[in-house]
Amino acid sequence: MHVDILTLFPEMFTGVMESSILKKAQDNKAFSYQTIDFRTYTENKHNKVDDYPYGGGAGMVLMPQPIFDAVADVSDQYKQKPRVILMCPQGETLTQQKAEELAQEEQLIFICGHYEGYDERIRQELVTDELSIGDYVLTGGELGAMVVMDSVVRLLPGVLGNEHSAPADSFSTGLLEHPHYTRPADFRGLKVPDILLSGHHEKIKKWRHQQSILRTWQRRPDLLHSHSLTDEEERWIQSQDKDF
Amino acid sequence: MHVDILTLFPEMFTGVMESSILKKAQDNKAFSYQTIDFRTYTENKHNKVDDYPYGGGAGMVLMPQPIFDAVADVSDQYKQKPRVILMCPQGETLTQQKAEELAQEEQLIFICGHYEGYDERIRQELVTDELSIGDYVLTGGELGAMVVMDSVVRLLPGVLGNEHSAPADSFSTGLLEHPHYTRPADFRGLKVPDILLSGHHEKIKKWRHQQSILRTWQRRPDLLHSHSLTDEEERWIQSQDKDF
Repeated sequence: MHVDILTLFPEMFTGVMESSILKKAQDNKAFSYQTIDFRTYTENKHNKVDDYPYGGGAGMVLMPQPIFDAVADVSDQYKQKPRVILMCPQGETLTQQKAEELAQEEQLIFICGHYEGYDERIRQELVTDELSIGDYVLTGGELGAMVVMDSVVRLLPGVLGNEHSAPADSFSTGLLEHPHYTRPADFRGLKVPDILLSGHHEKIKKWRHQQSILRTWQRRPDLLHSHSLTDEEERWIQSQDKDF
Repeated sequence: MHVDILTLFPEMFTGVMESSILKKAQDNKAFSYQTIDFRTYTENKHNKVDDYPYGGGAGMVLMPQPIFDAVADVSDQYKQKPRVILMCPQGETLTQQKAEELAQEEQLIFICGHYEGYDERIRQELVTDELSIGDYVLTGGELGAMVVMDSVVRLLPGVLGNEHSAPADSFSTGLLEHPHYTRPADFRGLKVPDILLSGHHEKIKKWRHQQSILRTWQRRPDLLHSHSLTDEEERWIQSQDKDF
């Protein structure tokens, strides 16, 4: 997968893109990216990329020309028209399913604005996907683009080794993960549950599944709607829940 | 506000923390941060910070000792016990309300894991808040911590100038923002709506409010539940919606 990122802040990306899984994916040739400062495309003689909004109001608006021309220039390098993703609060909220869908693409273009709004014609004519990473206000689209890339790139074939593939990842199974414990068994008086030290693999498996359901029930009951519980699981949850 | 970030990947933070609003907030003395590599606290002779999970299974688990000791060391510098935020998929989902709440604090400590799970005793004894930025799987807590900091720091007094304060930010008003347009009025045949060029401030205000409601209705009807529409707005939406 290759990703082109249109941004006025290319220096924001280096630390994240050159660490950990995103770095490893580049070393493995599973992933590559470039940042494109779309200010270099402006035809404005003062090098501006934004202007006042028509109709008045606070804040500046990113002009269509530099972004249209940067996307056209980048798209020219591809055989087929790549998906163009606008990071914005009005977009579809990123989910694990969306990350899995994007992981099927060979190229992506991200448009990251900063402070400003986007001229609506960018949305209407250029963009194929509008994405938000959650219901909170961020300064720009850059962090959002990094979040989307991290969630997508780790799904590409060959990127995660077996040691990290974590089939019990929250949101992959529809349930939150069960508690984990490692050594020491007694840490300053805080003990690991006996069951995990018992060596009974079947009982451990059952305990973990119950804890996973219980945690989801307590913290994210909305996730249980999409996960059908057995009658036994329902009864067990009801019995536990009295204690809270 | 001062933030201490416990991480094994301190180099991930530089690009984001030294740009834009997060940089400006540091220049203004409204915000400061330090990264703490909690590996430097381990008592393990091989410098390890993780170990196999009790009860078996894939993946490694972060040991309690280095994280307990790093948090204790950092907390010692504060008069009162700071909030300790664990970034994890099982946490409460970040919202604008949560960002506003955290913006009231003088100190925060973030714990960022990577690949691994956390020993449950970290959650039980050390942590005051567990936070997730959304329902998708990320490689580590670092990007999440940056997202939380960006959403919080921009709310601190004196950080955003008036030019950026954007009272119409999505999620602050409960509605998605209306479309924005800037020059040129005709960009390669794509035109700005006449109303915005009309100079009728009252009509423009009404048009924007209607567009804001319409966009929310089309994209995020869930947000409208918390925003009560007037009868007139309801009727207008119903009339528009027939066209889609």
